Amino acid sequence: MNQLPSRTIWYTEQITSELVQASSVQKVVFEGSTKYQDVQILDTGSFGRILVLDGKTQSSEADEWVYHEALVHPAMIAHPNPTKVFVAGGGEGSTIKEVLRHSSVEELVMVDLDAEVVSLCKEYLPNHHQGAFNDIRLQLYHEDALAFLQKRAEPFDVVIIDIPDPLEGGPAYLLYTVEFYELILSRLSPKGIMIAQSGAAGPTNYKDVFTSISHTMRQVFAHTSEYRVFVPSFGTMWGFIACGGTGSSILKDMEPDIVDQSLGQRLTSPLKYYDGIAHRGMFNLPKYFRSGIESETRVITNDNPIFVF
Amino acid sequence: MNQLPSRTIWYTEQITSELVQASSVQKVVFEGSTKYQDVQILDTGSFGRILVLDGKTQSSEADEWVYHEALVHPAMIAHPNPTKVFVAGGGEGSTIKEVLRHSSVEELVMVDLDAEVVSLCKEYLPNHHQGAFNDIRLQLYHEDALAFLQKRAEPFDVVIIDIPDPLEGGPAYLLYTVEFYELILSRLSPKGIMIAQSGAAGPTNYKDVFTSISHTMRQVFAHTSEYRVFVPSFGTMWGFIACGGTGSSILKDMEPDIVDQSLGQRLTSPLKYYDGIAHRGMFNLPKYFRSGIESETRVITNDNPIFVF
Amino acid sequence: MNQLPSRTIWYTEQITSELVQASSVQKVVFEGSTKYQDVQILDTGSFGRILVLDGKTQSSEADEWVYHEALVHPAMIAHPNPTKVFVAGGGEGSTIKEVLRHSSVEELVMVDLDAEVVSLCKEYLPNHHQGAFNDIRLQLYHEDALAFLQKRAEPFDVVIIDIPDPLEGGPAYLLYTVEFYELILSRLSPKGIMIAQSGAAGPTNYKDVFTSISHTMRQVFAHTSEYRVFVPSFGTMWGFIACGGTGSSILKDMEPDIVDQSLGQRLTSPLKYYDGIAHRGMFNLPKYFRSGIESETRVITNDNPIFVF
Amino acid sequence: MNQLPSRTIWYTEQITSELVQASSVQKVVFEGSTKYQDVQILDTGSFGRILVLDGKTQSSEADEWVYHEALVHPAMIAHPNPTKVFVAGGGEGSTIKEVLRHSSVEELVMVDLDAEVVSLCKEYLPNHHQGAFNDIRLQLYHEDALAFLQKRAEPFDVVIIDIPDPLEGGPAYLLYTVEFYELILSRLSPKGIMIAQSGAAGPTNYKDVFTSISHTMRQVFAHTSEYRVFVPSFGTMWGFIACGGTGSSILKDMEPDIVDQSLGQRLTSPLKYYDGIAHRGMFNLPKYFRSGIESETRVITNDNPIFVF
Repeated sequence: MNQLPSRTIWYTEQITSELVQASSVQKVVFEGSTKYQDVQILDTGSFGRILVLDGKTQSSEADEWVYHEALVHPAMIAHPNPTKVFVAGGGEGSTIKEVLRHSSVEELVMVDLDAEVVSLCKEYLPNHHQGAFNDIRLQLYHEDALAFLQKRAEPFDVVIIDIPDPLEGGPAYLLYTVEFYELILSRLSPKGIMIAQSGAAGPTNYKDVFTSISHTMRQVFAHTSEYRVFVPSFGTMWGFIACGGTGSSILKDMEPDIVDQSLGQRLTSPLKYYDGIAHRGMFNLPKYFRSGIESETRVITNDNPIFVF
Repeated sequence: MNQLPSRTIWYTEQITSELVQASSVQKVVFEGSTKYQDVQILDTGSFGRILVLDGKTQSSEADEWVYHEALVHPAMIAHPNPTKVFVAGGGEGSTIKEVLRHSSVEELVMVDLDAEVVSLCKEYLPNHHQGAFNDIRLQLYHEDALAFLQKRAEPFDVVIIDIPDPLEGGPAYLLYTVEFYELILSRLSPKGIMIAQSGAAGPTNYKDVFTSISHTMRQVFAHTSEYRVFVPSFGTMWGFIACGGTGSSILKDMEPDIVDQSLGQRLTSPLKYYDGIAHRGMFNLPKYFRSGIESETRVITNDNPIFVF
Repeated sequence: MNQLPSRTIWYTEQITSELVQASSVQKVVFEGSTKYQDVQILDTGSFGRILVLDGKTQSSEADEWVYHEALVHPAMIAHPNPTKVFVAGGGEGSTIKEVLRHSSVEELVMVDLDAEVVSLCKEYLPNHHQGAFNDIRLQLYHEDALAFLQKRAEPFDVVIIDIPDPLEGGPAYLLYTVEFYELILSRLSPKGIMIAQSGAAGPTNYKDVFTSISHTMRQVFAHTSEYRVFVPSFGTMWGFIACGGTGSSILKDMEPDIVDQSLGQRLTSPLKYYDGIAHRGMFNLPKYFRSGIESETRVITNDNPIFVF
Repeated sequence: MNQLPSRTIWYTEQITSELVQASSVQKVVFEGSTKYQDVQILDTGSFGRILVLDGKTQSSEADEWVYHEALVHPAMIAHPNPTKVFVAGGGEGSTIKEVLRHSSVEELVMVDLDAEVVSLCKEYLPNHHQGAFNDIRLQLYHEDALAFLQKRAEPFDVVIIDIPDPLEGGPAYLLYTVEFYELILSRLSPKGIMIAQSGAAGPTNYKDVFTSISHTMRQVFAHTSEYRVFVPSFGTMWGFIACGGTGSSILKDMEPDIVDQSLGQRLTSPLKYYDGIAHRGMFNLPKYFRSGIESETRVITNDNPIFVF
């Protein structure tokens, strides 16, 4: 059945205990361990260059634009004039690249725990960051995002949480709790928005962590807007949740015309995935998905954390 | 990293030459060949019971409702009163199950080439068809859908094309051409709608066949509405295209309220995926996807057919 | 490169953390758990029907004769007149089948802990046991071999240890110690021989457990004779060690003519693998292998057990 | 069950259509195509650095000494004073390394078709060749071995055929025929020996090509001696056949003492696998294997060639 030449080297990722995705490998660009995590940078036939941390694909050349446009632009557009932006994680540099497309941004603070990963991304993922690390608006710190925000009390217009999934034994699980979201809310400006990548969001896995994260955020924020996009290199839909206090816009209600108008005024370079119609597609969720969010009861706390497979 | 018990038996499906999806196997329910194709029915840990034809997953217990609700209900709702419905393919019985939820349906003609596959599905996929084959409104034929429609000239309100992808050497590739779509148009009632599963529709594979099928349909029909949903067992977004003549409704423009109202009047049992908001999510496509459809130039004909990997 | 039809269902066995062997699966005959272990019985394209316990292939239809002839006949032939034989393990029934080919045998005691596995083998592995369980010379017990031998003090002419590898948490690791071998020696008749399957014995893995088992036996027995054969379904050479007290024959020194003469006098049906020339090939080991045995220093005890991957 | 860290990058080799061996990959050292074949040089966790041609492992750092000692030394020892040696293939440089350990050798002619492969091996496989390419006794040519021997009529004491398996469409299949062996015989000195790697030789695959090659050689040579060793990176036993005219020694009859005595006189550095006892082990074959050779009837000719999977 297979008329194309067979591949012989494969990168395998266990999506769940019952499901594996395997991508052909053309080159092992880097393999090693930092102080915090295992790192692989691979050239694959299916998704181009990929970054893998602790055995989980973080992003790929072939679809990082899907993930990062979806992560960044809805929240940025929902704010009337985002000048100060905070990014937790985002080591590839793609998240800051998307933020910096907005001409309103004056100050961008990025805090990524792992300096070695950021250094590897700077060197090996040029198509991801496209030079964003050199922008003079950027301040880059390598420390724990939680500790950083505790000591730095200034408000941000948009806070973007782009960190790995909560792995048992990993560094990220305390950034998925009521306590952390309360800290974030206290650091948002009056119309400020927090947006967080929130785990797998397909019909077979959206209850793994996504609905719990959503329900936890609802304990803290006045508004939450859930949405999702399909990211092929993750092998599933991926979920995001935008949150804000009482003064913030509600993302799921934004009209396509308004989105397109704001994008037109602010963007300094064009997008591939996101616009007003795409916005409407992302935020209008299927029936089962809305029901699953509404019926969730779990609240994640420091004492009762959540972990992915 | 892996704390769950390791699986040892895997079903592997080559999604492309560079990408493989592997599901744990709990039971090989059936394996054999019919006159037309190889058939596997497997119990998997990831997707429950799956049907595989010629090495391609056709549907799974875990997500057949996503695929089949998306395939059937938008077109049914777009017609003011669908009484006569035609289904090509759909051997699992899930497509007819969804059609038969509509109280307006008086006559349902299903034509599936492979009687042996239908027989295996009746026996081994009870959770797919849920007894739909016993409905007295159903007429079931085992012959080529093209030949059937050529000789049977009566009009249908909704025509549903639920056939395998166009595999080289397979039986289906002549059902993806201008010539076939012209035949279908001649068999639609004045407000009739054709809906066809139209191949993978993720950002890395939507140009494989989906955009060509769309462009080909646009040569024949007055209106086309493209949409897609994520089907986990396919490992990708899956695309559908609804088409109609000048008298037909335009699906992509239907408002959520109208959809919900029609569903409320006609359905005899509740849905899990589809409603007015889900409709809006499915039809509002990302920027790159709409551009890819608009810029496609290929027209598929009997003399210039298209094949998938 | 692959002109044959591709297989899609695979049984994967992790030989080491760095090496996996995958066999195509035609049928999952049985999958379940007994009181003691996980059991799979599979029909594979590569090795016919295989028995898998706790994720390790125990034997296959395609090569069980290699393993079991090598396990049984050298020791049987080394005894001048084996009438009483003891088998620990050997649930498939192949080991007793080989023993019972010897006309000298009057009494055969088989002790296998797991009655459920033996029952499954009786039903599903007819080509392995070929009815041996019905021989009137057989006494079959389901208990721990160690406890059995402690309480039953009668001597045996040949003792065959055909048990799973020492897995951490598994039931077998106490049957690989100095203490167990001392018990065995006390249960051998004056010219008695013990033979034990002793783990992987290829150039890359013979030091995993084989050399330690050999060195441990040398603490107890006057004579030891190491040998090995290639078992394809194990993906490696497999090692055996025959041991005896001062009155026993030394297997590695037996001449082909003597072997063939004894086989001719005693066998009631012909063999496929073993004869005098095969004997010479099995016992004449490469230089590195003999050196590795001589330089080993580890002694396995109840307090200092050994485990395989 | 798996307590070691999971590997994620795997090299997969299809041993047969029903059997795959997968080795963890630490580094892709080289991947590309020469004029004649696809080449991969990989660092694996299971076998160290491996050379792969057209998807078939040729040799590994972990066990090349098993293969190459078995290939070279029995034939060298069987000749009373080998001064002129010919090697066909052997691009890694391991074969010539073994030949050059013999102090009797004055002239060593190596002919390997693929200059690019030899160049890659010189650079990337230092542990294989260990500098053998620099020995002044070596003459290295890059052309077809058949054409070379046709035009160069001088006699050799030992001819070593170390070429890839006969792949359909590959360059080697004409070097496995009666016609080629007749040419070789005409190029042997009176006591000359030819030795050829002759394919897989385990119980499940020795009839694929090994017995046919043996039977073909028996049409040409007065003496043939078959033998085999287990090569882990091939996943199977590997077969060799030594042949000679009426004046040559018969390898299978050589006594261990004679072998050890000759090795002692000639070797300039010690071996790991081969000595007199190892010789006896390699040449004393199991019953089924000797029967399979005797009952083979196929003769391979230029017009009726043989191919492996």
